[in-house]
Amino acid sequence: MKVGICGYGNLGRGVESEIAKNRDMELVAVFTRRKPAKSLRINANVPVVHVEDAAQWQDKIDVMILCGGSANDLPVQGPAFATLFNTVDSFDTHAKIPAYFDAVDAAARAANHLSIISVGWDPGLFSLMRLVLGAIIPQGQTETFWGKGVSQGHSDAVRGIAGVTGAIQYTIPAEPALASIRAGEMPALTTREKHTRVCYVATEKDADQARIAQEIKEMPHYFADYDTTVHFISQEELKANHGKLMHGGHVIHAGQTGQNHSQMAEFSIRLDSNPEFTASVMLAYTRAAYKLAQQGECGARTVFDIPPAALSATSWQQTVQHLL
Amino acid sequence: MKVGICGYGNLGRGVESEIAKNRDMELVAVFTRRKPAKSLRINANVPVVHVEDAAQWQDKIDVMILCGGSANDLPVQGPAFATLFNTVDSFDTHAKIPAYFDAVDAAARAANHLSIISVGWDPGLFSLMRLVLGAIIPQGQTETFWGKGVSQGHSDAVRGIAGVTGAIQYTIPAEPALASIRAGEMPALTTREKHTRVCYVATEKDADQARIAQEIKEMPHYFADYDTTVHFISQEELKANHGKLMHGGHVIHAGQTGQNHSQMAEFSIRLDSNPEFTASVMLAYTRAAYKLAQQGECGARTVFDIPPAALSATSWQQTVQHLL
Repeated sequence: MKVGICGYGNLGRGVESEIAKNRDMELVAVFTRRKPAKSLRINANVPVVHVEDAAQWQDKIDVMILCGGSANDLPVQGPAFATLFNTVDSFDTHAKIPAYFDAVDAAARAANHLSIISVGWDPGLFSLMRLVLGAIIPQGQTETFWGKGVSQGHSDAVRGIAGVTGAIQYTIPAEPALASIRAGEMPALTTREKHTRVCYVATEKDADQARIAQEIKEMPHYFADYDTTVHFISQEELKANHGKLMHGGHVIHAGQTGQNHSQMAEFSIRLDSNPEFTASVMLAYTRAAYKLAQQGECGARTVFDIPPAALSATSWQQTVQHLL
Repeated sequence: MKVGICGYGNLGRGVESEIAKNRDMELVAVFTRRKPAKSLRINANVPVVHVEDAAQWQDKIDVMILCGGSANDLPVQGPAFATLFNTVDSFDTHAKIPAYFDAVDAAARAANHLSIISVGWDPGLFSLMRLVLGAIIPQGQTETFWGKGVSQGHSDAVRGIAGVTGAIQYTIPAEPALASIRAGEMPALTTREKHTRVCYVATEKDADQARIAQEIKEMPHYFADYDTTVHFISQEELKANHGKLMHGGHVIHAGQTGQNHSQMAEFSIRLDSNPEFTASVMLAYTRAAYKLAQQGECGARTVFDIPPAALSATSWQQTVQHLL
């Protein structure tokens, strides 16, 4: 299948890198809002095209992978590209998913395209686990933990403080909370009890580090509700030891069956590269979008709507024989 | 939806126990091969019916849950009941799944019923994880570990040895193997390196325990390929400490993306009651069978073919809003 990438940030580069691992896929072009488009340097040996010229590529691309951000890019690009192509995106502004779904669904249906929205690991794989495990053990508790991993939003917030020259923030699940959920104790956990935050911060030479640490720890929404540790390190150390876009997380479901039988299921991931993993999930759903569109389906879909067999590159018979 | 149970062993009793946790389900009758059927005592306050009279219940049952064994019961009951009802079963003789699928599919299609086969945790949830994770990171290694848990087949094999009055066998994943897979080392593991086996055995008073231990450890297929530990204990201790049908396991997928970025995903379960968990999985797929049949679908299906949303008792809108 022929695939296009729209948006060339971390996620777009991840998709570009991982397409080669899927033998049934071929990257055809990368689309950008930059003008002139040619000023964007990419790794793959394919044309770089301005988004305004995308309509000319309708017959050459089976699925367009939308790698823009949820805040500004996707609300516009999602419906617009669903008019032109089958699409897959990673829209992750949780509260706005239903409205986004409706907008993409209307555009995709009108154009007879298939669009899978909100694909990645959360939303995405983690959502699947929450649904499946909750359906299996209805009398149970599902908890999601994120990390250990880099939060771009929190890192950016720290970088915005006066005197800070560089910073990275790690979100870390609290071990006692993990242990309690796994033990089936069904605890009522506060935000503070579930995750801790650790910041590595480089500052200007004469910066008041005590003031900076306090500003971080008291920042509303981002840090005030958490136990936060701040480490001041040099710019060199920051660059040398904290460059990976690592992430991870856990979905844990614990509940009871029968007479006090404790049942626990956990899905965990540990990622060296968050964008490359998200890209890999999107590519599996790109295959599904292609297959379902071939079968004549159209409209918007979520990961909840996709039969798992559609993700696989091997035949249904092979999959049943080797994986069931 | 109105549900029937066919077969009242550990699994059938598990389904009977867990139906009550699903508010959209009602147990209508239990079916047995025993004659007279009434001689079977069950916990639920519903009729016990002989399997030969099942046809009289066609209009009263939406989905029949087949709880018989894969060796003798399901090869006959699967196709026969698919003629009469929508069905869900836990057929787990791996090599025979394709042939079993075809037999059930033909019967279900002819009668316009929907049948989901091989539902449980392995085959079942573990199969799903193998498919999904393998599709996401194609350049990776998937390994399945079973345990710590009771293997009925291995326990029975030990019980068959002369002089043994009672026995239980635990299958245990080997920690070094788990650690190596999780670390992304992609090891080539032998059968012996993946699992160990531990037996607790009670014997007749004057039994030759050295001979029994040797017979166990050298038993082909069951123990010869594993490191096996045998503990001799009293019948009382066996009953007091080893009565739970506990089980568990792990599906671990590790692979690489980009330039040497290690990515790892793991799905683990820890079960106090294996049959009640299997029953719970079957009940979620019972709901899916009901929904898909209502939509006019027919024929056999596997867990690979079921859109996850069909498992949920809540509406699609609610599911997307709360779980995506």
